[in-house]
Amino acid sequence: MQDLPIIVLGAGGVGRAFIRQVVENRGLHAEQYGLWLSVLAVCDRDGAVLGLDSRRDQHGLDDPNLLDLVSYKAEGGRLAEHRLGGPQNDLAAVIDIAGRPGAVVVDCTATEETAWALLFALERKYKVVLANKKPLTIDQEVYDRLTRAGATGDEAHNGGHGVRHLGRCRWETTCGAALPVVSTLNRLVAAGDAVHKIAGAFSGTLGFVMTGLQAGQPFSTVVREAHRLGYTEPDPRDDLGGLDVARKALILARGLGWQLDMRDVQVRGLYPAEMASLSVSDFLAALPQLDADFRDRVEMAATDGKVLRYAATIEDGRCRVGLVAVDAASPLGRLSGTDNLVEFSTRWYSPNPLVVQGRGAGADVTASGVLADVIELAYTT
Amino acid sequence: MQDLPIIVLGAGGVGRAFIRQVVENRGLHAEQYGLWLSVLAVCDRDGAVLGLDSRRDQHGLDDPNLLDLVSYKAEGGRLAEHRLGGPQNDLAAVIDIAGRPGAVVVDCTATEETAWALLFALERKYKVVLANKKPLTIDQEVYDRLTRAGATGDEAHNGGHGVRHLGRCRWETTCGAALPVVSTLNRLVAAGDAVHKIAGAFSGTLGFVMTGLQAGQPFSTVVREAHRLGYTEPDPRDDLGGLDVARKALILARGLGWQLDMRDVQVRGLYPAEMASLSVSDFLAALPQLDADFRDRVEMAATDGKVLRYAATIEDGRCRVGLVAVDAASPLGRLSGTDNLVEFSTRWYSPNPLVVQGRGAGADVTASGVLADVIELAYTT
Repeated sequence: MQDLPIIVLGAGGVGRAFIRQVVENRGLHAEQYGLWLSVLAVCDRDGAVLGLDSRRDQHGLDDPNLLDLVSYKAEGGRLAEHRLGGPQNDLAAVIDIAGRPGAVVVDCTATEETAWALLFALERKYKVVLANKKPLTIDQEVYDRLTRAGATGDEAHNGGHGVRHLGRCRWETTCGAALPVVSTLNRLVAAGDAVHKIAGAFSGTLGFVMTGLQAGQPFSTVVREAHRLGYTEPDPRDDLGGLDVARKALILARGLGWQLDMRDVQVRGLYPAEMASLSVSDFLAALPQLDADFRDRVEMAATDGKVLRYAATIEDGRCRVGLVAVDAASPLGRLSGTDNLVEFSTRWYSPNPLVVQGRGAGADVTASGVLADVIELAYTT
Repeated sequence: MQDLPIIVLGAGGVGRAFIRQVVENRGLHAEQYGLWLSVLAVCDRDGAVLGLDSRRDQHGLDDPNLLDLVSYKAEGGRLAEHRLGGPQNDLAAVIDIAGRPGAVVVDCTATEETAWALLFALERKYKVVLANKKPLTIDQEVYDRLTRAGATGDEAHNGGHGVRHLGRCRWETTCGAALPVVSTLNRLVAAGDAVHKIAGAFSGTLGFVMTGLQAGQPFSTVVREAHRLGYTEPDPRDDLGGLDVARKALILARGLGWQLDMRDVQVRGLYPAEMASLSVSDFLAALPQLDADFRDRVEMAATDGKVLRYAATIEDGRCRVGLVAVDAASPLGRLSGTDNLVEFSTRWYSPNPLVVQGRGAGADVTASGVLADVIELAYTT
């Protein structure tokens, strides 16, 4: 049995689901993969629980403590105040104390502040799995250092930059949760297929809005319904603005080898700039003034046999995020509801694209993708 | 630059496309992956060309010779009679002579006879990529030994069987060509997701037939058209019988950890047993006698809002291949033309399945998937 040390950054929904799945799958991982996943540390914003302090053995935090910690966090507790925990203000220091050779650092946070801790972990030859998009969407150099942290010994062969992927970092769940999007792109790249275009719907919330519009609902009605059902963030503009989709688009564009930054992604949100300063309730109240414009756009698209989608489009060196009219009969055009969908149009996938579709958000499914990345890394040098 | 030695079994369409793509992507693989793919040997049914004899260096057959060999084979030549080649009647012996540490043996044949040579290669700690389904669909034990050939040093930890996948073997292109089907299944398994059902259309030919039936064409018309267009094998019963789809279904079922053999796969072909002994021309002439039955089935399905698909269904411990009526609005129901499509229904992908869709056959696209597998293995111990 191989001990696989794990350090979890973030104990929100994804981090907690990941820990639960680690515990639930002990039998599978022991019997089929010869692995024991040892959770050595769990960190939240300003606290940490270390497995070392309680047991000082090779098996990290024990399962009752892990499950207790998950419940504690779900009820709003802070790890700084947990009975096994304490304060932390430096994730790299936690990684330094808790880490050991072969450790996998799992980033389930949603902050760019983890980037430096992740780079520190990779310098220590630890491995990294990101569910967090932010570190991959700041500087190009940070993206390169994270994703190209190479297989041992290969850095020297490749200008110190490691290989293009297949190194000590995985980030599948940053685009479409556990859907095989990043890995599919990486395989197309490795095989030298020419990727002409990637087009994807990466927001379940905006998919719900588009489906409502297509069914003839007014924009204000469908956005308010999405808000009421909890499909949107507390401030629906966090979804409608498109920034989260833009981050995913940037990660895919960089995966193609393009050198670009967030400011190069052309993002068109679904509300005008003058509505950005309203309170949430005023914003929701003001929505009907947008209804006529959306109704016109839906009707104009329909006259050409098209439907509107909120999509990321990566093509011809440009990365755009916004409303597009696509053929109603295309994979994106046939999409309805909250599923994500990505089309890869390439030399070998032409005229019909390679399509991946399914749930693209949610703590459980995202955690399952993180877990698959972790198991994969266990067998990578 | 790391030298990646490669031995190619089979110089048919896929093997030739693979060699062409190796040559075309030299720059990419050198710059981005630090790899030089050295083709040490190419084998066909009864001959082989070895890189050793011509150069005795670390770079295998040089590119002009590789491209010349591809043309020679495309024109119907035999490697036994090639100017650099000679006869062979034992692939394991070729692997023994040409192989060296780190070698990847690539099986682009369509015969189960390679199985023993592949097992020999794995025992030598070489790596294996299969585009060939046959070795994975004979004995369960052969499947286990091929797919579980473990990461170095792990066999000892796991009853001598290696890990469930992630070892020294890849077989992505055995189901749906380069579509991410096997890798997606493996990720679901690694994460402990509960796979309730896999349903897939894995035959472009039969997809074409189903689309024609749905459009109201008689069965005989659409089969004859598929035959005329070269979409079917020379004997269309090789497609209509469903055996090739059954092999893919078996590989996926085994990927779930099920222990079963080809005789456990329930295969229903699209023609009755009494038509099996006819000549091809008599078979094509006799097809209209099936038209009324197919028309009735299409109409009966339509009254329930369903359409017919020729699908593999892996569910509840059973593996079935044949005509099924699926909801017209489901991913499989919306499929048209020759694309493949697979639905994975799991604990986390429910009620909507995870869907992968795209071209599922063709030498170039299959070769690109083989190449991606090879590059991935270069960074696996």
